Amino acid sequence: MAKELTTREENYSQWYNDLVIKADLAENSAVRGCMVIKPYGYAIWEKMQAALDKMFKDTGHSNAYFPLFIPKSFFSREASHVEGFAKECAVVTHYRLKNDEVNGGIMVDPDAKLEEELVIRPTSETIIWNTYKNWIQSYRDLPLLINQWANVVRWEMRTRLFLRTAEFLWQEGHTAHATQQEAVEETMKMVNVYANFAENFMAMPVIVGKKSENEKFAGAIDTYCIEALMQDGKALQAGTSHFLGQNFAKAFDVQFTSNEGKLEYVWATSWGVSTRLMGALVMAHSDDHGLVLPPKLAPIQVVIVPIYKGPEQLPGLNEVAERIKQELESKGISVKYDNRDTQKPGWKFAEYELKGVPVRLALGPRDLENGSIEIARRDTLEKKVLPQENIAVYIENLLVEIQNNIYNKALNFREENIRTVSSWEEFKEVLDNKGGFISCYWDGTVETELKIKEETKATIRCIPLDSEENTGTDILSGKPGKYRVLYARAY
Amino acid sequence: MAKELTTREENYSQWYNDLVIKADLAENSAVRGCMVIKPYGYAIWEKMQAALDKMFKDTGHSNAYFPLFIPKSFFSREASHVEGFAKECAVVTHYRLKNDEVNGGIMVDPDAKLEEELVIRPTSETIIWNTYKNWIQSYRDLPLLINQWANVVRWEMRTRLFLRTAEFLWQEGHTAHATQQEAVEETMKMVNVYANFAENFMAMPVIVGKKSENEKFAGAIDTYCIEALMQDGKALQAGTSHFLGQNFAKAFDVQFTSNEGKLEYVWATSWGVSTRLMGALVMAHSDDHGLVLPPKLAPIQVVIVPIYKGPEQLPGLNEVAERIKQELESKGISVKYDNRDTQKPGWKFAEYELKGVPVRLALGPRDLENGSIEIARRDTLEKKVLPQENIAVYIENLLVEIQNNIYNKALNFREENIRTVSSWEEFKEVLDNKGGFISCYWDGTVETELKIKEETKATIRCIPLDSEENTGTDILSGKPGKYRVLYARAY
Repeated sequence: MAKELTTREENYSQWYNDLVIKADLAENSAVRGCMVIKPYGYAIWEKMQAALDKMFKDTGHSNAYFPLFIPKSFFSREASHVEGFAKECAVVTHYRLKNDEVNGGIMVDPDAKLEEELVIRPTSETIIWNTYKNWIQSYRDLPLLINQWANVVRWEMRTRLFLRTAEFLWQEGHTAHATQQEAVEETMKMVNVYANFAENFMAMPVIVGKKSENEKFAGAIDTYCIEALMQDGKALQAGTSHFLGQNFAKAFDVQFTSNEGKLEYVWATSWGVSTRLMGALVMAHSDDHGLVLPPKLAPIQVVIVPIYKGPEQLPGLNEVAERIKQELESKGISVKYDNRDTQKPGWKFAEYELKGVPVRLALGPRDLENGSIEIARRDTLEKKVLPQENIAVYIENLLVEIQNNIYNKALNFREENIRTVSSWEEFKEVLDNKGGFISCYWDGTVETELKIKEETKATIRCIPLDSEENTGTDILSGKPGKYRVLYARAY
Repeated sequence: MAKELTTREENYSQWYNDLVIKADLAENSAVRGCMVIKPYGYAIWEKMQAALDKMFKDTGHSNAYFPLFIPKSFFSREASHVEGFAKECAVVTHYRLKNDEVNGGIMVDPDAKLEEELVIRPTSETIIWNTYKNWIQSYRDLPLLINQWANVVRWEMRTRLFLRTAEFLWQEGHTAHATQQEAVEETMKMVNVYANFAENFMAMPVIVGKKSENEKFAGAIDTYCIEALMQDGKALQAGTSHFLGQNFAKAFDVQFTSNEGKLEYVWATSWGVSTRLMGALVMAHSDDHGLVLPPKLAPIQVVIVPIYKGPEQLPGLNEVAERIKQELESKGISVKYDNRDTQKPGWKFAEYELKGVPVRLALGPRDLENGSIEIARRDTLEKKVLPQENIAVYIENLLVEIQNNIYNKALNFREENIRTVSSWEEFKEVLDNKGGFISCYWDGTVETELKIKEETKATIRCIPLDSEENTGTDILSGKPGKYRVLYARAY
């Protein structure tokens, strides 16, 4: 089974597609650009959701739910937002179907045309700020710290499972504050929550930075992001947090009476991550055998496979396996014991490698005699035989070690693939032959950024937060550099 | 604040609307028929989701996600399904907006018309069975036990918060089985899961029964339901579980190779509950002071309010309150300590009564001297003063007692409001003057059912599972009764 995967070397893009489908994460649906997230993929997403949701609540946020539909006119209210979002959208124009008397089947009822068309939300700033208008009167109503888990639709022309789909699942935080400072602090807090999640749960190192004017969110003053590096040397934006200033408050007339009795516009932020993280997770760690999942997000952390010749050997193996399973579960470890007789052990080994189960235990008749068990790590593919005694403690520690190892491997790869260049020739040479992040000076103009994008398809991924504003020369224009930035080709 | 609620006596319907809005559960949005679920309401829904999700997983189901959009033609495949569902739907006809050069603002781009219109899912049988076709080849692929948490849209003309909205949130289970027997068992298992959830979490007694032909789901062979009684004597359908036979398998050509090597159509079920449960929860238990929440679904189970005259009294109260809060939290009880100085204790008392917090603790300077604390129960509004010592154990037990008391109160009300009648005059008299469920014989014909509905607006809520099939006379037609059924006016 695993043999059917295209290798990364051969065709990274095809390897990714093969893996997402063969590991049962997702597949394309009958509706153009929309995916079906299959149970195994959804189980990983649920683990991501649970961890993120806890982090949001621990930082004082509550969940709520706003409508799927946004009246068309709402988009026109915030000038730059409409340019960025109102174009490639699914538009509801009618609210009824009827029997088609002429051609059979059903047809849209022309009498059921909406007075104002409704757009399926591509993001919810407009409908939410229209609602906040009624919720915010006084400084006592602030801050308002709300998150929504929802589906959104952006009519993308070229789609790829998880990375870019017409419909996707995400969370969108929308907060309202009395002061600019508080909103800026919230923006930074949440981008750091994302970085913490990416590193500690996904085992995926990220660079926290600010987007250039050209790459920022339509309607934001500043956009901050986390950027990760994939194994093919391309960057992937994994989450964004926007300081929206008073733009949406002004567009929807949301004012509050301050502590001093003055009427002021509210300050806003928004921040989101999506099922795109699933794509990032796959591409950051997996190998030619299949998925490599960090234990903290693996739906099954340990699988136990019995090895036996005749069915008379199974009861003894079942007994030991069930005991070990219980020991592990009592430590909060999720375990699957796969004693199906419809598949051979070799098939099961390949299957759980493909599915990225972090630890595999194999138990045969000889192990019963010796009180031993075979342990295989998915990350390194190492195998060893250990005593059954205290195996639960060993595995508990091993899962931590695997989580760290996956992170460190990705971190080493990332560090090896940030290259400082100082000439335009070097820039192009590194980009074409090595990929990765290129660190160099930028003169701060959109012109330069766009010219580089046009010539190389590389974009400024971010101005890293720890970037020093010292002197240097723009890689292309030769003008004085304003910041040291990271360029890369990106997903 | 609580005084602004219309009383149930005065106008039950208005009381419900007032309560949903004033208790911050939900409100109408700018989009016709769509609601905003506010943080406090959503927190209750999250508790419902968590409990149900665990029950689904404990019974072997996995979550997945299918597209929001369904190609129009899919609805025509199952004949009765299209009649029931494809009519009042939101229809996406275009995928792009553009600047309106003539009138300003934005307009639907006429060049971006979809070849086939997409319907926003009103329920997902069609898109899911179209997908299952590729997942099921052999008996080894069965059973397939999948659930989806999602938003759905039905273009209702008359909407009410939670009870009937154009967009609502729900879960829909869709399972596939090798045999009829297994599918029937699944249908019954899930309607019983719903009954268990309603009774043990919502503290809401329900009657489990089968729908009449006229009331069953469009596309089902049999629909089972749970029916609850609201305080105004009207019934509310709180969840349904459908045995779909091979209808969808045939419509989407889903066949499998059986154990004996024969090609057979797959057997199906589907089952769902929605945010309608929020409406049921409110109407089942609440009173003229506000919400009454069962402790198992209350976002805040205990609130502590300090009573003080000068700010110098607060630190001492804070210390004791925080200690008690920690004791309670260590028992897994959710506690809010509200020591805001922007509101008076009386305001806070009314507020938490309105919000249905099951237990309120009040702590004043005299309590510090005496080592005492005042405890008020939301369900009975009883107050007593108890020693602070061992208060956590007392409250832990009290929460169980409140949960049971709320259930028993609703059960008594329900039992008192099931009336057996034996004449048509009596039927109408009871319906108009007392409401509730009316138990009587039905001849099993759609004609009788519809005639009764037309004359009285009462419908057959269900044929209770424990209904004995013994002889009796139909209440209207006088023909031999086929079943003893429950009639009621319903939401």
